[in-house]
Amino acid sequence: MQKDWKEWLHKRSPAQVITAYYLISITFSVLLLSLPGVHLPNVEVPFVDTVFTAVSAVSVTGLSVVDISQTYSVFGYFVIMLILQFGGIGIMALGTFFWMLLGKKIGLRSRRLIMADHNQYALSGLVQLVKEIIKMIVFIEIIGMLIFGFHFLKYYSSWEEAFLHALFASVSATTNGGMDITGASLVPFADDYFVQLITIILITLGAIGFPVLIEVKEYLFGRKWEGAYPYRFTLFTKITTITYAGLLIFGTLIIILFEFQHFFQGKSWHESFFYAFFQSATTRSGGLATMDVSEFTMPTLLVMSVLMFIGASPSSVGGGIRTTTFALNILFIWHFARGTRDIKIFRRELHHEDILKSLVITILATIMCFSAVMIMSITDKQFQLIEIIFEVCSAFGTTGLSMGITPDLSTGGKIIIMILMFIGRIGLTSFLFIIGGKEQKTNYHYPKEKIIIG
Amino acid sequence: MQKDWKEWLHKRSPAQVITAYYLISITFSVLLLSLPGVHLPNVEVPFVDTVFTAVSAVSVTGLSVVDISQTYSVFGYFVIMLILQFGGIGIMALGTFFWMLLGKKIGLRSRRLIMADHNQYALSGLVQLVKEIIKMIVFIEIIGMLIFGFHFLKYYSSWEEAFLHALFASVSATTNGGMDITGASLVPFADDYFVQLITIILITLGAIGFPVLIEVKEYLFGRKWEGAYPYRFTLFTKITTITYAGLLIFGTLIIILFEFQHFFQGKSWHESFFYAFFQSATTRSGGLATMDVSEFTMPTLLVMSVLMFIGASPSSVGGGIRTTTFALNILFIWHFARGTRDIKIFRRELHHEDILKSLVITILATIMCFSAVMIMSITDKQFQLIEIIFEVCSAFGTTGLSMGITPDLSTGGKIIIMILMFIGRIGLTSFLFIIGGKEQKTNYHYPKEKIIIG
Ligand SMILES: [K+]
Ligand SMILES: [K+]
Repeated sequence: MQKDWKEWLHKRSPAQVITAYYLISITFSVLLLSLPGVHLPNVEVPFVDTVFTAVSAVSVTGLSVVDISQTYSVFGYFVIMLILQFGGIGIMALGTFFWMLLGKKIGLRSRRLIMADHNQYALSGLVQLVKEIIKMIVFIEIIGMLIFGFHFLKYYSSWEEAFLHALFASVSATTNGGMDITGASLVPFADDYFVQLITIILITLGAIGFPVLIEVKEYLFGRKWEGAYPYRFTLFTKITTITYAGLLIFGTLIIILFEFQHFFQGKSWHESFFYAFFQSATTRSGGLATMDVSEFTMPTLLVMSVLMFIGASPSSVGGGIRTTTFALNILFIWHFARGTRDIKIFRRELHHEDILKSLVITILATIMCFSAVMIMSITDKQFQLIEIIFEVCSAFGTTGLSMGITPDLSTGGKIIIMILMFIGRIGLTSFLFIIGGKEQKTNYHYPKEKIIIG
Repeated sequence: MQKDWKEWLHKRSPAQVITAYYLISITFSVLLLSLPGVHLPNVEVPFVDTVFTAVSAVSVTGLSVVDISQTYSVFGYFVIMLILQFGGIGIMALGTFFWMLLGKKIGLRSRRLIMADHNQYALSGLVQLVKEIIKMIVFIEIIGMLIFGFHFLKYYSSWEEAFLHALFASVSATTNGGMDITGASLVPFADDYFVQLITIILITLGAIGFPVLIEVKEYLFGRKWEGAYPYRFTLFTKITTITYAGLLIFGTLIIILFEFQHFFQGKSWHESFFYAFFQSATTRSGGLATMDVSEFTMPTLLVMSVLMFIGASPSSVGGGIRTTTFALNILFIWHFARGTRDIKIFRRELHHEDILKSLVITILATIMCFSAVMIMSITDKQFQLIEIIFEVCSAFGTTGLSMGITPDLSTGGKIIIMILMFIGRIGLTSFLFIIGGKEQKTNYHYPKEKIIIG
């Protein structure tokens, strides 16, 4: 039996494994969310809404057609937290695992994590990796819960209530689940900068990518990993971290710039800064918000849509085209215009294959999101175009922010948003392999012929 | 003096020549449009609007901040037609010329057009090419004028009037200028299918690309070109023509599908078909319309925006990312998903360089148009988002359709639209070289390192 499973795993492509994992998780989550006692007494949830909640939780998006605090019991909260855990950790583990298998070939330091013998590396490496990730994420969540818990004592009357909220807030932030049991996201904490800062840190730890966390750990506890000094971070870690930070700063500045005469009018500098900073950070993938984002003006909403479309790091709890894809696009366009095809950065060169992939993913994602907007402008025509664009980018980026239309979506609209959350979460690389089917090897060639472009 | 000019031309890159040509043309057009007698008596046009009209005419876009029939005299009409000619023919000639220079290297049949000796091919080839293009375009325009002229006798009271309108309509259609002196585009001919059909044919002859016209001519009068039978059209001609036809059919069907319960409700099948067919054809680059496009519903407007964004063939009178760019994107994404990097089509293979270029152009164009929409949502915030998107795509595709906001644009908005018309017309390939500056040759390499994408 276990042998069958091993054999099955060995024969599958990464894309198939990841997709299978997600489809199984969703089915499992739908069953869990249909258990008796999950809902509050006398609350009926239509089946499509239960599926929606399951997809949203598994993909750690956080878009919600129901108000969780008005729909689910405390037992329900724990079920949702559980789903967020295996949704969030799942892709992180599988993504990192396949990245390490790849790393095996090209001599990445992190492969030392996989210590089993070569014939069996796949399975035992996966198990060890999952353990490592769970350990790290749960550790972060517990720290987060403790910090929130003691702080929440000033908001809630009992220890139980404070720590329940603290646990949910910590899990939702770390897994970037974006769900809330306050009934109003983080709006009640709009003037509590401490809660916001901790939330941003937790979101970032989840969304920065597990390989980055591993490397930082290696760096800090170097001896353990036989690290040679000076420690060299991988190119991936450098690019994704710089892009992450760049997007965070860019988002904050542009929100301030666009809103200081609008939403921020009459607000103090620190209020304005924290609104901008938090809402910029949350577009990476967090999905929690300290305000009703529909109060922002059009240009801000457009920029936030793009930020959500870009999304978080690969092998993280986030979605979208991913930070590295975005970075490679910008780098390559710049290099292409300068007449070179080689991207040199940090004394390394990027593979042309990676560059191609990043360009293809960006275009495909754009086509996909555009098509979704177009279809939803038919199925959900009562909404403004920007509301639909924002919702679509939020779903594809598995961010979970909304201008408020999620509960009123048509069934068609819900299905499209579910598909986007699913694809955004498994990543377009995996999706490409699924739609592409079997690779066709050909050995013949035709004469090449130039054509006129643009 | 002539020698200096030759030397200058030899030292410049195609991008520089094309850009210089357009900047000079615009300056020249502004001067022409400021001549006494160009305007109707007592009409004052602000300078920015004259520049806008010049840019719109040189780029054969047709977006207009003024009503031409209420602003310009008959002399003005002729000035505008003249500008449309050198705007339309200019890029067609320069684009085709550089394509042929390229062809020289790779053995394209069309290079036989350039008959001068090898040291002098550039200049004499250009001159001959321009002659060839002017001959062909003017021939098409005269035929168009004659057909329109006799037909228009039933609409206009005098021969002069009928043939003035016929000439303007023929020039505006063939150069894809998109301008009109009826004051209402082709709306007065909404039930005259004959005028519409002729217009579509003229638009297509201008927008299908000059190399295609040359090859069809070669094919039809083969002996003259020492053609070997069976005649083989170039890959460029095949791809661009099929894409052109595909987009035309797709556009027609989707407009019918989206509108049969809306704008087409209560209309006969032939009315509906012609509305859909003409509006689909005009998005390629024509810009004339038989109806107020703002009466369409949101999904139709979104699809039309994309069709305009794609635009016409390269080396034609159109703009946008171009048909070949779009085709290569779709082909490559499909092949990439199937696990291959070689695109085999019509027993030929595409160059990887062309594929890369098409991907880069698409992404850059998307970023550019998105940025334009974002900025205009600040400068022109009184308009609906879809009105701005439509206007931006129309400008970049040098199409000239509008939901009616052009005359009410702010000065900032006008400047953005002008920049888009300019870049859309010279093409992003040229634009890339301009922003990129000098090519940097490097001989060193760094170790390659894989990173995680999407
Ligand atoms: K989220
Ligand atoms: K046009």
